[in-house]
Amino acid sequence: MTSASATPNSLLVTGTIGIDTVETPNACVNRVLGGSAAYFAAAASRLGPVRLVGVVGDDWPADHRHMLETLQGVDLRGLETREGGKTFAWGGKYLANMNDRETLFTELGVVADRPPIVPAAFADSAFLFLGNTHPDVQLGLLDQVPARTLAVADTMDLWINIARDSLVRLLGRVDGIMLNDSEATHLTGVRNAVTAGRRILEYGPKFVVVKKGEHGAVLVHRDGVAVVPAFPAEEAMVVDPTGAGDTFAGGFMAHLARSGNTDLDTMQTALSWGTVMASFTISSFSLEAIAKANAADLAARYQRFAQLARV
Amino acid sequence: MTSASATPNSLLVTGTIGIDTVETPNACVNRVLGGSAAYFAAAASRLGPVRLVGVVGDDWPADHRHMLETLQGVDLRGLETREGGKTFAWGGKYLANMNDRETLFTELGVVADRPPIVPAAFADSAFLFLGNTHPDVQLGLLDQVPARTLAVADTMDLWINIARDSLVRLLGRVDGIMLNDSEATHLTGVRNAVTAGRRILEYGPKFVVVKKGEHGAVLVHRDGVAVVPAFPAEEAMVVDPTGAGDTFAGGFMAHLARSGNTDLDTMQTALSWGTVMASFTISSFSLEAIAKANAADLAARYQRFAQLARV
Repeated sequence: MTSASATPNSLLVTGTIGIDTVETPNACVNRVLGGSAAYFAAAASRLGPVRLVGVVGDDWPADHRHMLETLQGVDLRGLETREGGKTFAWGGKYLANMNDRETLFTELGVVADRPPIVPAAFADSAFLFLGNTHPDVQLGLLDQVPARTLAVADTMDLWINIARDSLVRLLGRVDGIMLNDSEATHLTGVRNAVTAGRRILEYGPKFVVVKKGEHGAVLVHRDGVAVVPAFPAEEAMVVDPTGAGDTFAGGFMAHLARSGNTDLDTMQTALSWGTVMASFTISSFSLEAIAKANAADLAARYQRFAQLARV
Repeated sequence: MTSASATPNSLLVTGTIGIDTVETPNACVNRVLGGSAAYFAAAASRLGPVRLVGVVGDDWPADHRHMLETLQGVDLRGLETREGGKTFAWGGKYLANMNDRETLFTELGVVADRPPIVPAAFADSAFLFLGNTHPDVQLGLLDQVPARTLAVADTMDLWINIARDSLVRLLGRVDGIMLNDSEATHLTGVRNAVTAGRRILEYGPKFVVVKKGEHGAVLVHRDGVAVVPAFPAEEAMVVDPTGAGDTFAGGFMAHLARSGNTDLDTMQTALSWGTVMASFTISSFSLEAIAKANAADLAARYQRFAQLARV
């Protein structure tokens, strides 16, 4: 946080743009648009403008670019194409329960060379989401957004295992962290999600969002705790869970950005927006369902969720 | 349902009164008051009167009887003491995660001889909860409460395995069924809780409550679906999960009974009351915490839950 002032309500996401190959018990798709930043941006763009920072190779399919371009509100000036490089590619297979999955391959491609750079036009971003990557890379990106109001990072087991010190440094510099329940347990040794969240607060962030997949999420904030169930989806509605967590993050961050608030009450509503976004994402492969959801669809789903989950 | 009329708002529970021996990673207790009907009645009595039907042996400790007697609102006229018989006893050990448990022993005692009988004074009960036992026994008890407005049954894996036909008959005659997510999957072959619930509705009941322990519960009703998270308890708050499901049922049924309604909206509020009751139960061994919770404690916890879980 420097003396430079941020553009109010602006939201920036850094992360992967990927080419996904996904197999489920019922269907499969080959080389569709995926990656954490693509999913995040698609969801966030449903609520307001979002700036995307990422990198692709020159093998990146034109229709993937077209898909992101037609999503109104996604600013692609931070998307770098590296000549001669290969786009990040991921293949996964879901088991019959649609929750457990195997990774079939991960080809880092251009992601392994060097990190993307935040363009000067995006340096004034107020809300920043650092998609999952090496925490040292996340720290470098963080420094390129000096006027930020709120920075939130995602992480994964790999970094807890091989870059724990860097991850701890990152936790001391971001405002929030978002991770799965198994990752929160891995990081803290504590199985209980609330208590694991409290331990993570000791590293410095103001809040932790522990994602529990089909069981919802828990927000552990310095000012209190909040809990949200997942949208109770029927089996037939679940086509492909890929990207559910990234679009949850996109809905969460975009609601904070558009409201311009970062208090606990706003974050609680943001959890519900994340849940609504994820409920669209799982109902199709790739970004198809979330991209098609218009304002009326979103409002109806939000209202339905508020009714289903009222206490 | 016959032409005899039920006493409005009356609630009857049938189930076990047990002597529990429980070991957790932090502590253990020996021969404390337990059993599904005891836990249910303790929770239900916090919201209104409840009639208890069960059976104990003459070894039943006087202080266990005293505990139930001091719970204002538990009518013990349906509690039979069998001379020369032994009270149902259960021993269990919780693993470090406080969710998985091993049963160390189960001594059926008087429960194995013959079922309890609903006394004539209780035959006019409006709301009936059939605690877990052989479905044929549950059917026999159901017939003894002919004026009922709403009957709900609990069940377990054992009966799905060895008495499936009887269980299916029971499902055709009760209004609702309450079971764990693993049991719902076992019964239907479907992992998704909402879809499993829908399959169970095909056997006849109007609604199914799928309990997910620390992840809350899902209500699948002919008129719609509702979902509730569990109270986000800190690790230090969880002393002993035994009885959480039974007190969840007690709070749920007691709210329906006192309101006199069985519509989806009332059931949704009832889910929250069940959640509140379970949150007290897990914070002590035996019935200690739930028995001590007074009206102000309950109202405060309910309000806190409504705040934590608002969407």
